[in-house]
Amino acid sequence: MTEEDTTYLNVKDVSFINDIKSIAVIGPSKKREYFFLKNHAEYFKGPTYAVHPTAEEIPNFDKKNIFPSLEDIHGEVDFAFIAVPPSQILRTIDSCVKKNVKLVTVFTSEFSDSGTEEGIALEKELLKRAQNKVRILGPNGLGIYYPKLGIAWRPGFPTTPGNIGFIAQSGGICNIAIYGAEALGINFSKVFSFGNGADIDFVDLLYFLSNDPETDIILCYLEGIKEGRIDDLKKVLEQNKKPIVILKGGQSETGSIAAKTHTASISGDNRLWHALFRQFNIIDVDSLEQLLHTARLIDFYGIFELNNLAVFSISGGYGVILVDLLEKAGMKIPPFSSEIQDKLKSKFFLPGTSSNNPLDLAAQFFYVISVYEIIDLALSDKKIDGLILDMPSFYLTPVLKSRDNQDFESNMIESLILGHKHNKPLIPIIQRLNNPEERESISKKLIERKVPVSGDPLEFIPLLTKISEYKRRMGHS
Amino acid sequence: MTEEDTTYLNVKDVSFINDIKSIAVIGPSKKREYFFLKNHAEYFKGPTYAVHPTAEEIPNFDKKNIFPSLEDIHGEVDFAFIAVPPSQILRTIDSCVKKNVKLVTVFTSEFSDSGTEEGIALEKELLKRAQNKVRILGPNGLGIYYPKLGIAWRPGFPTTPGNIGFIAQSGGICNIAIYGAEALGINFSKVFSFGNGADIDFVDLLYFLSNDPETDIILCYLEGIKEGRIDDLKKVLEQNKKPIVILKGGQSETGSIAAKTHTASISGDNRLWHALFRQFNIIDVDSLEQLLHTARLIDFYGIFELNNLAVFSISGGYGVILVDLLEKAGMKIPPFSSEIQDKLKSKFFLPGTSSNNPLDLAAQFFYVISVYEIIDLALSDKKIDGLILDMPSFYLTPVLKSRDNQDFESNMIESLILGHKHNKPLIPIIQRLNNPEERESISKKLIERKVPVSGDPLEFIPLLTKISEYKRRMGHS
Repeated sequence: MTEEDTTYLNVKDVSFINDIKSIAVIGPSKKREYFFLKNHAEYFKGPTYAVHPTAEEIPNFDKKNIFPSLEDIHGEVDFAFIAVPPSQILRTIDSCVKKNVKLVTVFTSEFSDSGTEEGIALEKELLKRAQNKVRILGPNGLGIYYPKLGIAWRPGFPTTPGNIGFIAQSGGICNIAIYGAEALGINFSKVFSFGNGADIDFVDLLYFLSNDPETDIILCYLEGIKEGRIDDLKKVLEQNKKPIVILKGGQSETGSIAAKTHTASISGDNRLWHALFRQFNIIDVDSLEQLLHTARLIDFYGIFELNNLAVFSISGGYGVILVDLLEKAGMKIPPFSSEIQDKLKSKFFLPGTSSNNPLDLAAQFFYVISVYEIIDLALSDKKIDGLILDMPSFYLTPVLKSRDNQDFESNMIESLILGHKHNKPLIPIIQRLNNPEERESISKKLIERKVPVSGDPLEFIPLLTKISEYKRRMGHS
Repeated sequence: MTEEDTTYLNVKDVSFINDIKSIAVIGPSKKREYFFLKNHAEYFKGPTYAVHPTAEEIPNFDKKNIFPSLEDIHGEVDFAFIAVPPSQILRTIDSCVKKNVKLVTVFTSEFSDSGTEEGIALEKELLKRAQNKVRILGPNGLGIYYPKLGIAWRPGFPTTPGNIGFIAQSGGICNIAIYGAEALGINFSKVFSFGNGADIDFVDLLYFLSNDPETDIILCYLEGIKEGRIDDLKKVLEQNKKPIVILKGGQSETGSIAAKTHTASISGDNRLWHALFRQFNIIDVDSLEQLLHTARLIDFYGIFELNNLAVFSISGGYGVILVDLLEKAGMKIPPFSSEIQDKLKSKFFLPGTSSNNPLDLAAQFFYVISVYEIIDLALSDKKIDGLILDMPSFYLTPVLKSRDNQDFESNMIESLILGHKHNKPLIPIIQRLNNPEERESISKKLIERKVPVSGDPLEFIPLLTKISEYKRRMGHS
């Protein structure tokens, strides 16, 4: 990030985040069993200091790194996590300024989020006292999760760095996303919980991720932005080249009131937000689950445009339902080209099957070699952009137990990763309705191979449309 | 069912199904390890006979119950499952007529479903030879699953009888539904896979379930009905008083072609079907998952009308998203009445919480006694029709492990069954993103107490709207 890039933009530079070398946790709480201190210290690669006026010992924490005040720390402190009561917050921020701390997370709440005059005034004073020398995440925020450097605010956060950035006002939303990422097979570059956004706000963080070499996909949970920042947001969006997926909270009447209570956000006019999403080709989703599933689809298969799909089912009826859902969502399930159709026909040998699109495998599913050949052929058809496959989970037990177990499973996995060979999305549905353990086991292996296993067609079909529309608009811009 | 009831209706009486006392499986296949014979014999309470021209022994099957022909069986045969090759089907049906078999399932396929002239002719001939003396399910069908009598076509079908009837052309769809029912906590009275519906068809079965004392909710997967049957269908719908939920296959262009291949069904004009659904207050869903989830909601909470909901979340952000989704779906999240609001306020004691609707519990969630009191209060508000609760699954491990385990879990379950005390739907979302084992374990206990645990808000919110609309229309008819 060079100076020239940012001069026309009203954004605060937080690129030093990529270079945090030391952390202090100010106000670790014995009552909370030193929760935030322990979590920040657990995986962080540099020194983590505890700042506490009286504590001499903290269980499982190096005594040498406990200091009565920030000033007493000998080395530099790049980042501080502040969890002191509101009455001590101003004194604390003063000491951060003195110590040349670059960035703080203010976890303390009851500022503008409380809706009281005192809270609003305290937030203003906090900002003033930081003097633009210390950058603030929060108050009422959880700060930074940055697995590459080992920065985490809760225990058990995944330690593998990824390429997905996430900006959220809500810390709870971040928690759900971070803990859920592993099960989905995705990893984050950075996650920011910025709470009230008094200093560093959504626009600043969006600019940062948009230019962060460690981030390829940007996710946002946004309840609103401050008045007067919309033009700055537009400038940031104009220079952005990465896919942005937004879940906009507070779109309903009561939702917008709740958002105000939650993070003092003004949700704004929905029509304006949707116009903005359209203007800047932002993918707009309806739930946190959709946000994460969209990120996974893009992470596993890149940005794709699906016009013509192959459908592969074991139950003819389920195949019909899938075709209905996909065509209603704007995709087509066309006949295969005649050359591919002829080849496919020769691969079907059981009655009650169909070699047309949608393919109905019926009991031929158990002949896993033919499953591989059929998927390979279907995806080799030039007009086919991807394949959706249905695998009822009740088949897993008899199949995995009665057949040559290892062979069947590994061959099935080889068949289901064929999307990557053809560079076309292949999405298997393994219904959640049965065999949770077997489902879990095979899903894990597939997810490791970057196959986005789903459990319900309505979970991902609307997202295929959204990603395809994004790609189409990219082409037109 | 009295004669008078049916004289004006063109339906075939199959009420004798409730009284099946003996079964024959004709054409058990050694190659398939006597699959259908074993499955029908496993739980059936009366005698199951095997009819095979040459077999003298069948593993784990009583030798005395093997006969070379149907005529050789001494006792009566009420129901026969036929799995002979097409070439033997006519001879077999003749013998069923002679033996006074009341009902057969013809599993054999390649009749009208093959689309060939021979297949169509064979189906006609089969029907003629049955002489209206033997009623036929199929061909190309799997027949009856009837847990009360122990009739099942696949291994491991649940044995607990329930109150949900299901009619489907597709056997594969039936399998997914039947195996999935246990995990969802619902049970079937009867399931019918009627395949091509050459004799007993959708209209007959719908009439039967509509008047079956063992069935309270009727589910249907329908690809189409025969021309000329639409008026009969309307008459059956006119006399029906039970909730009917339909998944209509073949609604898209390609889907209707696939339906024709699958079960020789003419899907018909979508607009006509949707007009019919509206006219007769039928709940129309988009996926098999929605069909089963709708049945569960009605089974657990009866027919409900949700106008005003309480939302209870642990993450304020997730609460905002829920409010948005629910209000977009036509429900309201209104303020509590002032009396309830005052009482609720007194129950909140941690900062960062909100006692308004949507309720934001934050860390107070860990004080399970207050969770109980808060839910109880919210549901006691007269204007509140139900409650949606979000419980991030990542909380389950620390909570269940670090607190007084038993106590926490049992208290949480007591809180989540409060919907039944107030006779108002309470639906908890335990996100699938984490802790699959803990999630599975607590979900099972909740489902036993008739609490419909979900994993994703979009999985059930559209169904709340559909059930509420059904109730409203009921009131107007």
